[in-house]
Amino acid sequence: MPLPAPELPEPAHADLDSMLSRKFGKEIANYFSGSPLNRVSFLRADHTFLSTAFKHPSTSFLVFSNLQPLFKSPTELAYVSYKDVVPLTGEDPYMQTEDEMISTYNSSKFTPQLIFLGLDERNKNGLLYKDHYKGAPYFAIDATPKGAIQSAAEELAKNLQERGYHFGEARMHMTLPAEEAAIYAEARHLLDWNARNPFCAQCGNPTLSVNGGFKRACPPKDMGSLKGAIGSTNSVTPSDPTERPPCATRTGISNLSFPRTDPTVIMAVVSPDGQRILLGRQKRWPPHWYSTLAGFLEPAESVEEAVRREVWEESGIFLGRVVIHSTQPWPYPANLMIGAIGQAIPEGETVHLGHDAELEDARWFSVEEVREALRVGTSGLGDEAGPEYKEGGLRLPPKTAIANQLMTAVVNGFLGGDSKM
Amino acid sequence: MPLPAPELPEPAHADLDSMLSRKFGKEIANYFSGSPLNRVSFLRADHTFLSTAFKHPSTSFLVFSNLQPLFKSPTELAYVSYKDVVPLTGEDPYMQTEDEMISTYNSSKFTPQLIFLGLDERNKNGLLYKDHYKGAPYFAIDATPKGAIQSAAEELAKNLQERGYHFGEARMHMTLPAEEAAIYAEARHLLDWNARNPFCAQCGNPTLSVNGGFKRACPPKDMGSLKGAIGSTNSVTPSDPTERPPCATRTGISNLSFPRTDPTVIMAVVSPDGQRILLGRQKRWPPHWYSTLAGFLEPAESVEEAVRREVWEESGIFLGRVVIHSTQPWPYPANLMIGAIGQAIPEGETVHLGHDAELEDARWFSVEEVREALRVGTSGLGDEAGPEYKEGGLRLPPKTAIANQLMTAVVNGFLGGDSKM
Ligand SMILES: [Zn+2]
Ligand SMILES: [Zn+2]
Repeated sequence: MPLPAPELPEPAHADLDSMLSRKFGKEIANYFSGSPLNRVSFLRADHTFLSTAFKHPSTSFLVFSNLQPLFKSPTELAYVSYKDVVPLTGEDPYMQTEDEMISTYNSSKFTPQLIFLGLDERNKNGLLYKDHYKGAPYFAIDATPKGAIQSAAEELAKNLQERGYHFGEARMHMTLPAEEAAIYAEARHLLDWNARNPFCAQCGNPTLSVNGGFKRACPPKDMGSLKGAIGSTNSVTPSDPTERPPCATRTGISNLSFPRTDPTVIMAVVSPDGQRILLGRQKRWPPHWYSTLAGFLEPAESVEEAVRREVWEESGIFLGRVVIHSTQPWPYPANLMIGAIGQAIPEGETVHLGHDAELEDARWFSVEEVREALRVGTSGLGDEAGPEYKEGGLRLPPKTAIANQLMTAVVNGFLGGDSKM
Repeated sequence: MPLPAPELPEPAHADLDSMLSRKFGKEIANYFSGSPLNRVSFLRADHTFLSTAFKHPSTSFLVFSNLQPLFKSPTELAYVSYKDVVPLTGEDPYMQTEDEMISTYNSSKFTPQLIFLGLDERNKNGLLYKDHYKGAPYFAIDATPKGAIQSAAEELAKNLQERGYHFGEARMHMTLPAEEAAIYAEARHLLDWNARNPFCAQCGNPTLSVNGGFKRACPPKDMGSLKGAIGSTNSVTPSDPTERPPCATRTGISNLSFPRTDPTVIMAVVSPDGQRILLGRQKRWPPHWYSTLAGFLEPAESVEEAVRREVWEESGIFLGRVVIHSTQPWPYPANLMIGAIGQAIPEGETVHLGHDAELEDARWFSVEEVREALRVGTSGLGDEAGPEYKEGGLRLPPKTAIANQLMTAVVNGFLGGDSKM
């Protein structure tokens, strides 16, 4: 399946060239990657660590409302401190171990979603834990006014507004510096995943956020529900009314308990003679706007196979070799964009749009035309092209999009045969 | 998080060197990729196509019981025909459009899970659909004896046994030729995903398989349940007892409706001087057995970042450049293994196992030792090493594992600087 609506990012006003600098040889760091935080993922099960981090004076909280993060300015996220969030979370939401949380689970109790994002190790005033782990902790919190936190969240929102902060849809501008964008991306992906999965897909019962927001458990008991006794379709009524039916996610490790990331493929397709690039467009895009083809990787496909299948399904082109170029996290809601460059085979370069009706058009552009459009015709989807753009010329996505990086690689001779390192 | 139990495949007795041949330049096709089927994914919503394919004389059905596929011999899957499965499925399970299936949904009705796998275009006796799409259709069917099909499935199992077929856990031998393994992988991944997701994670209600087994819908009504009226915790009792509460998966495209694939990273780590390879081992593995490190990619990470994080968490090593090598579908239950080669930085080559307690050991081996072990010490986890193996020597996974391919690439000079195409 092609991506339903591959949203193209708007231009970033940050210093993109330095941001996308090749930190490691020829490696491309795409927008939304490059987080400065150490996730210390193995500490997420340690409630003493989380509790210490939560209350530390160096800790920053990124506040969201309806998946929109708090901004100080269009190029700066706003962070708040412990005392701001405590009316929503209580003094210590990490007081209990995970096992205690699970055994005392009460589905009728509302707690705001928290995510432990990681430690900023550059901050010398941060915490020090077990001699090894130091830095300033970062958390995200969902402060959408609802449930038991409705009035506290409204109060906080008012307070934040008075400080000049506002909740803004980052997707609409993407003006953040790369490192901030990466912190935002981690927070958004996790908050969205938790919000999308309040129930267990295996057994249909409510689940509980644990592991610093990186896991959802299906507790065996629920203190807040008599559903097991009254509403159950089970023929056996359990003796303990808080007991829930057995669930496979409890007896083994299940991927359902962990965040989902959907691998997608996006590819610059080069003609057999190396002189042309295949681009496609969707109907809803502005006139003259094209981009690289993209789609979801399917079960039991290699990346290379997914690239060949999507290109054939959307454009009728048959690809030979495929090389993976770079990858980009894309938190809308949960994609990993795997960027590739593929070359059509000589007998397979005829465009046929009839297989999958996804694209309005797909056609070959000369490398020269793409090179020129990368210079003068890039912008966000809703923005004007630059001053040198001439009406009728090809328009392309900005540098924050991996599509742009793939086309740039091609016009700069990626297929030319020198080392890809 | 490291992979909970990165199962290593057993040796395949098929012609692996030709199977892993570089069909497209230097591209590596790993085991479980390389399916001969065209999935024609855009035809899955076309019930006329599915119905035609289901009943076509050229059609093959791969039968599963408890996720185990049917074998004819250790190196050959067994396929059955329409008349074998019809007692389980009825004459035409694709009689209705998807919209009709959704609007007449009845959660109390049991139907066996079917997957449309694709068309084998090499078969000249296959169907021809809309002038463009030809080939012999492949389906998978879950014939586990349960629910309404219990006795029909038991009957079929008996019948198949009489033909000399048996359900065997492919994971335990991996003896299939590459193309058969790829067909099996697609079927297993999809059957498992459907079995694992009978409920909607967004609203907790039962879901319905549509789109040839590649989608699960959350129907707005349920003819077979009075749950909405009786067991509901909603304060509003709907006027129509078959009506279910609103669900976000119905109003927009949700990834919850589509199969899940978990991106994982697996990496051969090379020392700064290029002369050593870092390998790790888990406690439960046989003595002297090592492999490359691996783990799940996390939300909002690029592949390169996930590789660096996992290597640091599991071994304490700091990586500089990271290059993606190849990918491997891994249907246990739903992984995409993204294979990479990374190089440690000079200040970061000291092993420290204390961060994440996953590995029993991780250490540097000389390229020569790894080269020799690739020659004499590879085998499946449960098998003996080859005749030239000397007790105490390094043991490694077989060619069917991407780990083996990554180490092979390193000892063959992958980092040497020539083109990776
Ligand atoms: Zn459950
Ligand atoms: Zn639902």
